[in-house]
Amino acid sequence: MSDFRKKTRVAVIGGNSPGRAALDQAFEVGRRLAARGAILVCGGLGGVMEAAARGAREAGGLAIGILPGSSLADANPSIDIPIATGLGYTRNSLVVMNADVVVAINGEYGTLSEIAYGLIYGKRVVGLGTWDVKGVLTAHDPEEAVRLALD
Amino acid sequence: MSDFRKKTRVAVIGGNSPGRAALDQAFEVGRRLAARGAILVCGGLGGVMEAAARGAREAGGLAIGILPGSSLADANPSIDIPIATGLGYTRNSLVVMNADVVVAINGEYGTLSEIAYGLIYGKRVVGLGTWDVKGVLTAHDPEEAVRLALD
Amino acid sequence: MSDFRKKTRVAVIGGNSPGRAALDQAFEVGRRLAARGAILVCGGLGGVMEAAARGAREAGGLAIGILPGSSLADANPSIDIPIATGLGYTRNSLVVMNADVVVAINGEYGTLSEIAYGLIYGKRVVGLGTWDVKGVLTAHDPEEAVRLALD
Amino acid sequence: MSDFRKKTRVAVIGGNSPGRAALDQAFEVGRRLAARGAILVCGGLGGVMEAAARGAREAGGLAIGILPGSSLADANPSIDIPIATGLGYTRNSLVVMNADVVVAINGEYGTLSEIAYGLIYGKRVVGLGTWDVKGVLTAHDPEEAVRLALD
Repeated sequence: MSDFRKKTRVAVIGGNSPGRAALDQAFEVGRRLAARGAILVCGGLGGVMEAAARGAREAGGLAIGILPGSSLADANPSIDIPIATGLGYTRNSLVVMNADVVVAINGEYGTLSEIAYGLIYGKRVVGLGTWDVKGVLTAHDPEEAVRLALD
Repeated sequence: MSDFRKKTRVAVIGGNSPGRAALDQAFEVGRRLAARGAILVCGGLGGVMEAAARGAREAGGLAIGILPGSSLADANPSIDIPIATGLGYTRNSLVVMNADVVVAINGEYGTLSEIAYGLIYGKRVVGLGTWDVKGVLTAHDPEEAVRLALD
Repeated sequence: MSDFRKKTRVAVIGGNSPGRAALDQAFEVGRRLAARGAILVCGGLGGVMEAAARGAREAGGLAIGILPGSSLADANPSIDIPIATGLGYTRNSLVVMNADVVVAINGEYGTLSEIAYGLIYGKRVVGLGTWDVKGVLTAHDPEEAVRLALD
Repeated sequence: MSDFRKKTRVAVIGGNSPGRAALDQAFEVGRRLAARGAILVCGGLGGVMEAAARGAREAGGLAIGILPGSSLADANPSIDIPIATGLGYTRNSLVVMNADVVVAINGEYGTLSEIAYGLIYGKRVVGLGTWDVKGVLTAHDPEEAVRLALD
C-alpha cells in the first residue's frame, strides 16, 4: 500500500481572513504536523487554509485541499492535491470526513460547521483560539495543538 | 405563481432523540408556523423533525423533509414532500438552504452544524433551548420562537 | 399519510433549449401525468423542465423542481416546490433519485447523465425523441410516454 | 507550486466487474499514463478502477480515488490518495470534475453517467470499448487511448 495511505491525516480548519496571530499559528501547526509525518487536509483556499498549507510545504509534507468550487485552479499555491467538489459551503462536511483528526484555529461560522461535522463523525477535534464547543480539546499554542492531535 | 411559492419557509432543526419537553416545543412550533401560513422544512426523520411536522400537519400546513438517504420511504409519516438526497449528514446544509428562516430546538452536533449553516447563509436563526451561538436570537417558548421567526 | 405521499412521482428530464416540437411534447407529457394524478419532478429551470411544469400546472398537478443553484428564485414560475441544492450539475443524480419513473424528452449531455442515473437506480426510463440507450423504453408520442410511465 | 499541480490529470472510468480483456486494457492505460507523467483519477473501487491504479503504480505514478462512501479504507490498495465523499453514485460527477481528460473503458450505466459528465464539463473524452456517444473520441487499444488523451 502507498506510503501516503499509512500517514495520519489532519484537517486544519479556520477562516479565510483571520488576524496575523492566527495565521502564524496555522503556519506553525501545518509545519509541525508535516514534520511529524502527517498529511494536511484543508479547504484549499486562503487565510488559515493557506498558512497551514505553507507550513506543511516548508516541512516537506503533503497538503490536500477540498475546494468548494469546480476549478482546481482555485487552490492556494501550497496545495499539492486540490480536489474540486462544486458543492459550495456544503463541502465543509467533506473536509472533515477526509481527516482522522481535526485542528480548528480561529474561524467564523464555516469553521463552526466543520467543528460540528468533526464531532458528528466522531473524530478528535482540537481547538486553538476557536469556538468553545463541548467535546473539543483546548490547545494553547501550536505545539500543544499538534501534540493533542497526534498523541 | 404557485401559492406555495409565496409562503415563507421555516426550517425547524433539532435532534433525533430529544426529551419530552423539546418534542412538545417542536410540535407547538410546527403547529404555530403552519397556522400562520408558513411551510415547514426539516430533515424528515424522527425526534424534533417528526414532532414539528406533526404540528404542521395538525394545523393544515405543508411539511418538506430533506432526507439524508436515497429512499423517500425514510421520511416520517407527517412529511408531505420528502426529498431524497443520498448525501448523508452532508445534507444538513441543504435543509437550511431551503428555508428563509431557521428555528433550532434542542439538538446535538447535527443541529449545531445546521445553526452554523443558517448563519453562513445569512438567514435569521432563532434558538429555543439549543446551542448558544453568537448571532442566534434566543426564544423562551414556542410562541416567542414563531414570533421571532415570522415578524 | 399525506395524499402527496401516495402519488407516483415522475421525473421529466430534457434540455434547456430544445426546439418547439420537444417543448410541445414536454407540455403534453406534464399535462397528462398530472391529469392521471402523478407528481412531476424536474430540474426546475427552462426548456423541457418549464414546459412540463406548465403542463402539470394546467392540469392542476404539483411540480417539484430540484435546482442546481442555491436560490429558490431560480425556479421557473410553474414550479410549486423548488428545492435548492447548490450542487451544480451534480444535482442531476438527485432529480432522478426523487422519482419513481423517468421520462426523457430530447436533451443533450445533461439528459444523458440523468438517463444513466435512472438506470443506475433501477428505475423505469421512458424515452421520447432522446438518446438511444439500452434499457430505455421507447415512446413515440406523449400519450404513449405517459402510458409506459404509469401503467 | 507543487510538482503534482503541474501534471495532467486523467480520469480512467469503467465498471466494477468487467471481463479480463477490459481489465488488461485498464492496467495498460494506467501504466502508460503514469509513464508519461500524468496523474490518474478514478472512482477508487474495483474492476477498471483498480486495474488502472495498479498500472499507474507499476509505472511509479500517483492515483487519486474519489470514493462513493465516507471511509478512506474503501479504496483499493493501489490508490495513493483516497478521497471520501459520502455522496454515493452522485460522486460520479466529481470523478470527472477532477480530471483534465477522461478515458472510458468498457463500463455500464455508471460509466455512461461519467461520460456524460465529461462532455457536460467540456472535457476531452476518449472511449475504449465503451458506450458509443457522439463527442467521444474512439481508441482501439490502450496505446491509442493514451495518445488521444495526452497529445
